Amino acid sequence: MNVEIISVGTELLLGDILNTNAQYLSKELANLGFNVYKQVTVGDNIERLLNCFREAFEVSDVDMVITTGGLGPTADDITKEAATKYFGQELILDENSWQEIREKCAKFSGGADKIPENNIRQAMFPKEADVIRNDNGTAPGALFKKGSKKILVLPGPPREMKLMFIEQVLPMLQGNSNSILISKYIRFFGIGESALEIKLKNILEEQTNPTVALYAKDLEVMVRVTAAANSEADCEKLLCDKIKEISNICGEYIYLIGDDSISSSQTEMDKVVAELLVKNNTTISVAESCTGGLVTANLINYPGISKVLFEGCVTYSNEAKIKRLGVKKEILEEYGAVSSQTAEEMAIGVAKSFNSEIGVSTTGIAGPDGGTSEKPVGLVYFGIYYKGKTFSIKKIFSGDRRKVRERAAMEALNQVRILLLKNEKQ
Amino acid sequence: MNVEIISVGTELLLGDILNTNAQYLSKELANLGFNVYKQVTVGDNIERLLNCFREAFEVSDVDMVITTGGLGPTADDITKEAATKYFGQELILDENSWQEIREKCAKFSGGADKIPENNIRQAMFPKEADVIRNDNGTAPGALFKKGSKKILVLPGPPREMKLMFIEQVLPMLQGNSNSILISKYIRFFGIGESALEIKLKNILEEQTNPTVALYAKDLEVMVRVTAAANSEADCEKLLCDKIKEISNICGEYIYLIGDDSISSSQTEMDKVVAELLVKNNTTISVAESCTGGLVTANLINYPGISKVLFEGCVTYSNEAKIKRLGVKKEILEEYGAVSSQTAEEMAIGVAKSFNSEIGVSTTGIAGPDGGTSEKPVGLVYFGIYYKGKTFSIKKIFSGDRRKVRERAAMEALNQVRILLLKNEKQ
Repeated sequence: MNVEIISVGTELLLGDILNTNAQYLSKELANLGFNVYKQVTVGDNIERLLNCFREAFEVSDVDMVITTGGLGPTADDITKEAATKYFGQELILDENSWQEIREKCAKFSGGADKIPENNIRQAMFPKEADVIRNDNGTAPGALFKKGSKKILVLPGPPREMKLMFIEQVLPMLQGNSNSILISKYIRFFGIGESALEIKLKNILEEQTNPTVALYAKDLEVMVRVTAAANSEADCEKLLCDKIKEISNICGEYIYLIGDDSISSSQTEMDKVVAELLVKNNTTISVAESCTGGLVTANLINYPGISKVLFEGCVTYSNEAKIKRLGVKKEILEEYGAVSSQTAEEMAIGVAKSFNSEIGVSTTGIAGPDGGTSEKPVGLVYFGIYYKGKTFSIKKIFSGDRRKVRERAAMEALNQVRILLLKNEKQ
Repeated sequence: MNVEIISVGTELLLGDILNTNAQYLSKELANLGFNVYKQVTVGDNIERLLNCFREAFEVSDVDMVITTGGLGPTADDITKEAATKYFGQELILDENSWQEIREKCAKFSGGADKIPENNIRQAMFPKEADVIRNDNGTAPGALFKKGSKKILVLPGPPREMKLMFIEQVLPMLQGNSNSILISKYIRFFGIGESALEIKLKNILEEQTNPTVALYAKDLEVMVRVTAAANSEADCEKLLCDKIKEISNICGEYIYLIGDDSISSSQTEMDKVVAELLVKNNTTISVAESCTGGLVTANLINYPGISKVLFEGCVTYSNEAKIKRLGVKKEILEEYGAVSSQTAEEMAIGVAKSFNSEIGVSTTGIAGPDGGTSEKPVGLVYFGIYYKGKTFSIKKIFSGDRRKVRERAAMEALNQVRILLLKNEKQ
């Protein structure tokens, strides 16, 4: 079933409010297996809204339009008028709705006499429409019908719209959907969007069910795999096979396979690494130069981290690196502060002085200045100490000072993750 | 001028991400006096996008379409192809763009050989279009033109889109409006949106020229004042008067009055405080418990900070507070780690042991657990040591663990700012 979502309200076109309704409805409809064809936002203008209905049903050939907003009591609330006009029907008073609205207004304004006259507009519907009760406000919704065409009108305030959708619309729509949908989210680190797309080219081109979608984020890439089937078990089977297929191609970049994308806007790397540390009860300390506290701050996002992280230090100056971490003056002079040698000395130093099993260090050139041809802006060395062994990693990051530091902090966490997994396997 | 905003991206139709771009652009265009006729969201489908262009120019009769998204390197990024096809033009390689993209990719992947081939798609434009540089990503934008019709294509990631819009598109569009527009941005800290709205009620209601717009951010509130006049001098005069009017009402919350909103998405507090420290050549060190490195990391966002900040420490455990900062065991036992006494001892300790003029400390309950009736989640104590004097501040922050820690870090910086300004005045 093809659906178009139309948000009605001049305040949206002025940018005064953020349109969260369209996202909410899109997610719900996707989960029902409906195909959201388009989202449109128009002002409180009956002619323009009529044009949207024509475009949706006559050009885009959608089966159902869902509107939010424009159900208020005032003259500029025109959604019902437009739907009625488009279907060539007629608005008449719905006694039940009017009764409920009067009671709500009476309760609200503390006296039936105080009911604003124009509230009666909220009780007007064509006889062909199914009225939908509003348990969170005065404006009822409705399902307008003509032949195979449907216009579902919902109130604009998210609180009213969501409750109405969950309690009354969802059961109604579920009857129209013939299969359940389940999605899994695969998070990648250390590979860019286009590089990953090349690796997954065939999978992306041949996708049918499950569908595979690729999203680039600020610090990572996410792949969403969505399966449709008649039972949850069948969905899980489809998902499992597809995820195995993807893992075989680029599993080394996958750091998390999850059920939700709730925090899809931000990385989950901090949580994944912190959980690994706590699970393995492995103590850690971090000596940060260019990241300046970001690595430690990311770990401390995790509530239980105090079991394995007791303290950290930012050794920004050479003096601090020498005094706090025992980095040798000669090393700093011979190789410079931004070098694998210094990074390793820092890692050893912080593990020793804070008496932790893992010691991690960062030292780099975050920019904008200080870069040279052999040590460009974005160059970062990571030192890792664990069980008497020390090694370092060299990376070059793009972006401004803030981005370079954020990416470096994530890379440091990723290196800890890889180290822990390697040692779990042993 | 009638404008339509088209957001391109299947992830928007699936409800995986919230469309903040449409609101941002609508607000900006409204402030320019442009008429946003409609907002549309379509998937990564060239035929559907072409239908949107037809609808916009041939039915709705708009003058300019602004698109966001669909400029990535992958095959499902089809915005430029659609615009080119609609105008009957031809995509050819733009050497300058390709050069810049190659440099960015080379830097990121640490070797020019590693540039994914499909990135070249991001450098293809019709010769009739004006290419717009992207300082925050690889995909350039462009202004497509045919006769009086314009299609302005912008990247999808808000960070890239906003910077491109403010730095390059805004000046371009201002040319189309018949008077000069100049904006100033007033940044507030320590007051919420609704509280500020009440204070500025009259100004907001009676606004004509300059216009006054209020933006709530994650950690602060920003007010934009935009004046329109025939000369820059007249604009400045209008702005100066209006800003004075606002300052008289709530000046104590203003921490920055700036000319740009380049980083309007994030706070400028870190920059303001770092600049003050460097300007006054006042050394600082931070001992962080609940903020876990965020305060130091924020200061190190500022390139020149190394002159006044040499090191910092995260003393998360009581042991660390005792060992690194010399906090007395009795104080921790009698008042607890989250107390004004501990905060002050930490501030003194870090200033002494790192030999800095200012010592700042944070200790609090970030949650989700660990709260009690007298010490609830969100409670944070700040200790400040300066010139032999020590004092502490108590605040209670709302939000989840991450938010509490971010807000606490900003508050710590704000307290340093207030301290420095007080001592400058003396």
